[in-house]
Amino acid sequence: MNYRISKKMQDLRPSAIREIFKALSDPTIISFAAGNPAPESFPVEELARLSADIYAKESVTALQYGITEGYPALRRDVEARLSDRFNISMEGQTTVITSGGQQGIELLCKTMCDEGDTVICENPSFIGALNAFRSLGCNTVGVPLAEDGGIDLEKLEDTMKACPRAKILYLIPTFQNPAGTCMPLEKRRAVLELAKKYNIVILEDNPYGELRFAGEEIPTIKSLDKDNIVVYSGSYSKVLSAGMRIGFICGPEELITKLVVAKQVEDVHTNQFFQMLCHRYITECDIDAHIAGIRKLYKHKCGLMLSELDRVMPDCVKYTRPEGGLFIWCTLPDSIDQGEFIKKAMEKKVAVVPGQAFNCDTSAPSQCFRLNYSTPSDEQIITGVGYLADAVKAML
Amino acid sequence: MNYRISKKMQDLRPSAIREIFKALSDPTIISFAAGNPAPESFPVEELARLSADIYAKESVTALQYGITEGYPALRRDVEARLSDRFNISMEGQTTVITSGGQQGIELLCKTMCDEGDTVICENPSFIGALNAFRSLGCNTVGVPLAEDGGIDLEKLEDTMKACPRAKILYLIPTFQNPAGTCMPLEKRRAVLELAKKYNIVILEDNPYGELRFAGEEIPTIKSLDKDNIVVYSGSYSKVLSAGMRIGFICGPEELITKLVVAKQVEDVHTNQFFQMLCHRYITECDIDAHIAGIRKLYKHKCGLMLSELDRVMPDCVKYTRPEGGLFIWCTLPDSIDQGEFIKKAMEKKVAVVPGQAFNCDTSAPSQCFRLNYSTPSDEQIITGVGYLADAVKAML
Repeated sequence: MNYRISKKMQDLRPSAIREIFKALSDPTIISFAAGNPAPESFPVEELARLSADIYAKESVTALQYGITEGYPALRRDVEARLSDRFNISMEGQTTVITSGGQQGIELLCKTMCDEGDTVICENPSFIGALNAFRSLGCNTVGVPLAEDGGIDLEKLEDTMKACPRAKILYLIPTFQNPAGTCMPLEKRRAVLELAKKYNIVILEDNPYGELRFAGEEIPTIKSLDKDNIVVYSGSYSKVLSAGMRIGFICGPEELITKLVVAKQVEDVHTNQFFQMLCHRYITECDIDAHIAGIRKLYKHKCGLMLSELDRVMPDCVKYTRPEGGLFIWCTLPDSIDQGEFIKKAMEKKVAVVPGQAFNCDTSAPSQCFRLNYSTPSDEQIITGVGYLADAVKAML
Repeated sequence: MNYRISKKMQDLRPSAIREIFKALSDPTIISFAAGNPAPESFPVEELARLSADIYAKESVTALQYGITEGYPALRRDVEARLSDRFNISMEGQTTVITSGGQQGIELLCKTMCDEGDTVICENPSFIGALNAFRSLGCNTVGVPLAEDGGIDLEKLEDTMKACPRAKILYLIPTFQNPAGTCMPLEKRRAVLELAKKYNIVILEDNPYGELRFAGEEIPTIKSLDKDNIVVYSGSYSKVLSAGMRIGFICGPEELITKLVVAKQVEDVHTNQFFQMLCHRYITECDIDAHIAGIRKLYKHKCGLMLSELDRVMPDCVKYTRPEGGLFIWCTLPDSIDQGEFIKKAMEKKVAVVPGQAFNCDTSAPSQCFRLNYSTPSDEQIITGVGYLADAVKAML
């Protein structure tokens, strides 16, 4: 049998991060590679209590088929929070529960793009989104981040002009993955104007928006949008549980109604029990207090990783100082071979993600690597950063 | 804003069944339209007990990110059952846990087909699969079912010859949806030979394989396959819970390894907690006894619906006599306008699915409609069939 693989899937490789994650069955490896939330951040006791109650009182609804749009009460909760907490107007908008934030990204692309169409992305950007676009036969065209942490506006307009088949501008304006930076408010307004001018939908991916532990909050692009340009993707992975796969996508009714049809043929609907569990948690527990606890935890972990980097890492290695999210983005000096460094780190049993993984152009080189501080323990952070510094010193 | 919808999604309508399902919020409607398992078939008590134990002992694993391939212990359970119960050889095969059977179908198509490629299907066939193929820009070419309940072999070969871009042959050989029939053993062997000759992968969809309540079991096509031609899709929706969205796909390593990459960009992995719950149920409870109970229930419900049809339905309406699965397939005489009949049935508050929904060619007419017996109560079956007979009589 000669298996004929589709052109769009032929060259797509599994995410480097997910592959590293698989290699982590070796418990002696310190992983700064994942994007996992801290295990301490799962509200296990409450979820166990509410689950027992769902089995006792609503088991049939929880175990039977649901509707593709999602559990109605949870959709209402999501919209109320977007409106109250993020100042997003729900006029003309609708919300669909997705199987994690990832699914919403893939579905919007499927809804709008045919093979050969283009998605404009920040470069670097989230590998899961880049691969989703590629898996649908789309071109990912990268626009570099500027010094201020937001996308380079001039290059963005050049790209929009040059790409008539660009339909979506994919952005992670808040605690960008992998760079950890935030797009300044004025740039958010400017990006919105450009998208309007070139009739391109903005997909604002905001999985880390609740995780600010320093600095001033910046309004989401969606909250500034008066022209129905922005589709907003969010997730409960980083605040309740990643393994449950519950996210959402909110945008103009006309678009999202089409997106529902695309979801229907992918998985009919998202796990019904956990949708109900989310709803119960949001309405019966204190989610704000819970999130405040997570912020405190990550503030500590990020602070520890930064202070260790400050203490032991040679000055030639540059890194971001995030005010939220999960990641620190590091840049090696040109004198160090990045591939050799990643290998040396792995020999010392520290896993990091090489910067190439986040490039729109997969063949482009990178001097960067990404560190995660939410998953490792304090001890692992201290030991692991030490090993990374040793690896750098050995290569100078 | 002028939203540019992809060509492949532009004309795709939501599944008629899911739309009817939404309309069923009116509790006075008797629905024979869904494909829902009977609520009595959910093993609530055991799931509640095992869930509590997972929270107590393995909460971090259950709530954290998992690997895309699926929870390893559940993959082993699935393979053991495919091997022991269905006599399927696991040599050179691998299994991935999917978010319901639906996802496996969509993923295989994405892995193999580009826009403009063809999937050959039985006509009529499962609307969820047809729409999945369409959502990826594929043509669905239908081959009619023959009198024996299996696909018409001669027309199948004609179609394979005529379609060089046909990459997948999608079949539901056991309790076909919507027809309720089984493909005879000799025809299964012949189909396998044809697929080999024309280098086309068979996707054998078997969500109802465990639900035989009469007649002799027929080997799956996958169990007859010596040439790595068949990919097998299954689901726990009809035996444990539909709402949890747990299915699986098993096939040649080379293909399934690629399919994992496609799954990764759709939802990263399937709900981890429920994967673990399935594993616990399969290994700690008596799933065979549980399935035997479901079979007994459906034997009763199907028998009741058939005896009511025999008793009150005018002879001019023909219907299948299924030996398993969830559906009876009815054909109206040419003298009755099918669209009028469906409307009249709905006025009498009985919902059925019009046959057009299952046609590969969506513009083709149909004299058929599908009845489901697993969801309605005994009383609803008796009342509802009576109303349908009244509708027919009024139109004669």
